[in-house]
Amino acid sequence: MKQACELMNRGILALVSSIGCMSAGSLQTLADAMHIPHLFIQRSPAGSPRSACPQTSRMPGTDDYTLMVRPPVYLNEVIMQVVSEYSWQKFILFYDSDFDIRGIEDFLDRTSQQGMDVSLQKVESNINMMITSLFRTMRVEELHRYRDTLRRAVLFMSPATAKAFITEVVETNLVAFDCHWILINEEISDYDLQELVMKSIGRLTLVRQTFPMPQNTTQRCVKHNHRINTSLCDPKNPKSQQLEVSVLDHQPIHYDTVLLLANTFHRKLEDRKWHSMASLSCIRKNSKPWQGGKSMLDTVKKFGVSGLTSFLEFTDNGTNPNIFFEILGTNYGEDRGRGVSRVNVSPYVMMA
Amino acid sequence: MKQACELMNRGILALVSSIGCMSAGSLQTLADAMHIPHLFIQRSPAGSPRSACPQTSRMPGTDDYTLMVRPPVYLNEVIMQVVSEYSWQKFILFYDSDFDIRGIEDFLDRTSQQGMDVSLQKVESNINMMITSLFRTMRVEELHRYRDTLRRAVLFMSPATAKAFITEVVETNLVAFDCHWILINEEISDYDLQELVMKSIGRLTLVRQTFPMPQNTTQRCVKHNHRINTSLCDPKNPKSQQLEVSVLDHQPIHYDTVLLLANTFHRKLEDRKWHSMASLSCIRKNSKPWQGGKSMLDTVKKFGVSGLTSFLEFTDNGTNPNIFFEILGTNYGEDRGRGVSRVNVSPYVMMA
Repeated sequence: MKQACELMNRGILALVSSIGCMSAGSLQTLADAMHIPHLFIQRSPAGSPRSACPQTSRMPGTDDYTLMVRPPVYLNEVIMQVVSEYSWQKFILFYDSDFDIRGIEDFLDRTSQQGMDVSLQKVESNINMMITSLFRTMRVEELHRYRDTLRRAVLFMSPATAKAFITEVVETNLVAFDCHWILINEEISDYDLQELVMKSIGRLTLVRQTFPMPQNTTQRCVKHNHRINTSLCDPKNPKSQQLEVSVLDHQPIHYDTVLLLANTFHRKLEDRKWHSMASLSCIRKNSKPWQGGKSMLDTVKKFGVSGLTSFLEFTDNGTNPNIFFEILGTNYGEDRGRGVSRVNVSPYVMMA
Repeated sequence: MKQACELMNRGILALVSSIGCMSAGSLQTLADAMHIPHLFIQRSPAGSPRSACPQTSRMPGTDDYTLMVRPPVYLNEVIMQVVSEYSWQKFILFYDSDFDIRGIEDFLDRTSQQGMDVSLQKVESNINMMITSLFRTMRVEELHRYRDTLRRAVLFMSPATAKAFITEVVETNLVAFDCHWILINEEISDYDLQELVMKSIGRLTLVRQTFPMPQNTTQRCVKHNHRINTSLCDPKNPKSQQLEVSVLDHQPIHYDTVLLLANTFHRKLEDRKWHSMASLSCIRKNSKPWQGGKSMLDTVKKFGVSGLTSFLEFTDNGTNPNIFFEILGTNYGEDRGRGVSRVNVSPYVMMA
């Protein structure tokens, strides 16, 4: 907040933030007050799934200068569809300590209304201690019943925690080959995918966000499951290797957001009527908002950008409409030893 | 935060806050930095049950200048004991939209480990619309099953929402005389109690916080379930009527906190060695913390105060150890018409 103020005093005219909901709220207020476009990339701590940000209260009549760069959180709808397709009536839902369970209130409401039995359990960061304590406190018949519950589980956690957790429950014999677990997280890399499949026994279903192929495929190439500009894909281009390490494995959406902003500035600077200059101060009380902000925001919304995460665009109400999930599943029923890695992971369903 | 800073610049030497966890975090940091005692009365929005505040990260070696005036949130332990005593294996848990369900993660963990079936459902502020939508979306057999689930429910909500919700489910015939519902909330007034019993059919159990009788009962009198100084209880004292309206029905703990602070100042001002004067500024970077803060904080912790909520005291680690709950239950099995009010409410169990 203080940082944002200082930047503004130095003449910054747009904000890109990659933070959690709480901090975003203050930036949102600031952006509205100063008429500064704010491109907000919601970040959840430690790679856990996102939970939707609570509605911030706006003064009536205030324009919204914040664009949510990522599409709305759709996990409630997706996981409901997945467990319904499998006709699950009883399962356990594990979440890591960084996941805000208020994010699945809708899902829990719906399971409750449909009479499904869902147990909720937090997975502490010290998984080993958590499981040891389970074995210590549970009586034998309780442990049997618990093992039975574990046959069907949904995981709302970071890929890293999921890996550690699956490893522990397999090693302690809490799950057997007849289990079916589902991990849902918008961001699961191909590398995580392979590792998770290797570590788990039984059936594993993985749900992650995906980006639609653009219509004109000749202008695109694919790397690490991301669509990239052809120039960057060219092996003769020395930047292509660099890009792979520095951007692709991290956050392609950050790259796209900055690209979008740069394109917009370029467009606006060609517009002679645009108020490119502004002297803003968010410390002084009577400071006037920027005259050029609204027009810049409109341009960001109108044009979008073709980037690493396919086409980044916004609807009129300022949301990114590109919500696509893919559901990947391991083959089931093979009699294979624990830790054997040869499993086919194949695209399963594609949802819009 | 800004307000607190301004107060501090004007020479304020202690803070009493009655706010939620998030805002308290900033005040906590400020109090630690300036060595200003901060008496924090945790407040949950709209009368919902409290959820424990998340641990704030402290710089290593920093002293804690915040005292939690209210005892730690104990609802997880209490509700676990209550449902275990009733041997409930399957029930639905309703919470209002102001309740932070992260506050019952421990309870959910334990029910999950013990194989209990707990459904979670949020009660929206528009209860009427919520129930109408249930009837619209559920098929007949789903509705039958749902009615069966509703026979046993735990409510984590404000007394006001509980009243409205119970009224609606009774009027729409979603529950019958064979239901047993439990409402848990630290603050349920005697008036709320009577109203809730009148509105509900079937069995109702109410769990609320209570304050222990002091040993020396001759010096006390009781009014509205709160122990009061005898002087204030004397009907000849003109303030006794006033007090009833202005303080007792609202927040006796606010009264006690201010009383505690006043007593401490009185004590400290008699201490010649104490640094009563301080010039603090939380805006300037090099401002020094107050020299007298630690000693004042120690005095607050050491002496406590005998107030409206019995004896307000703190342990060495700065927590209020007075955790007492009472569990009140309506008589069960009477064949009485809906809305008939004659029900005996009697103390049931007392837990420490």
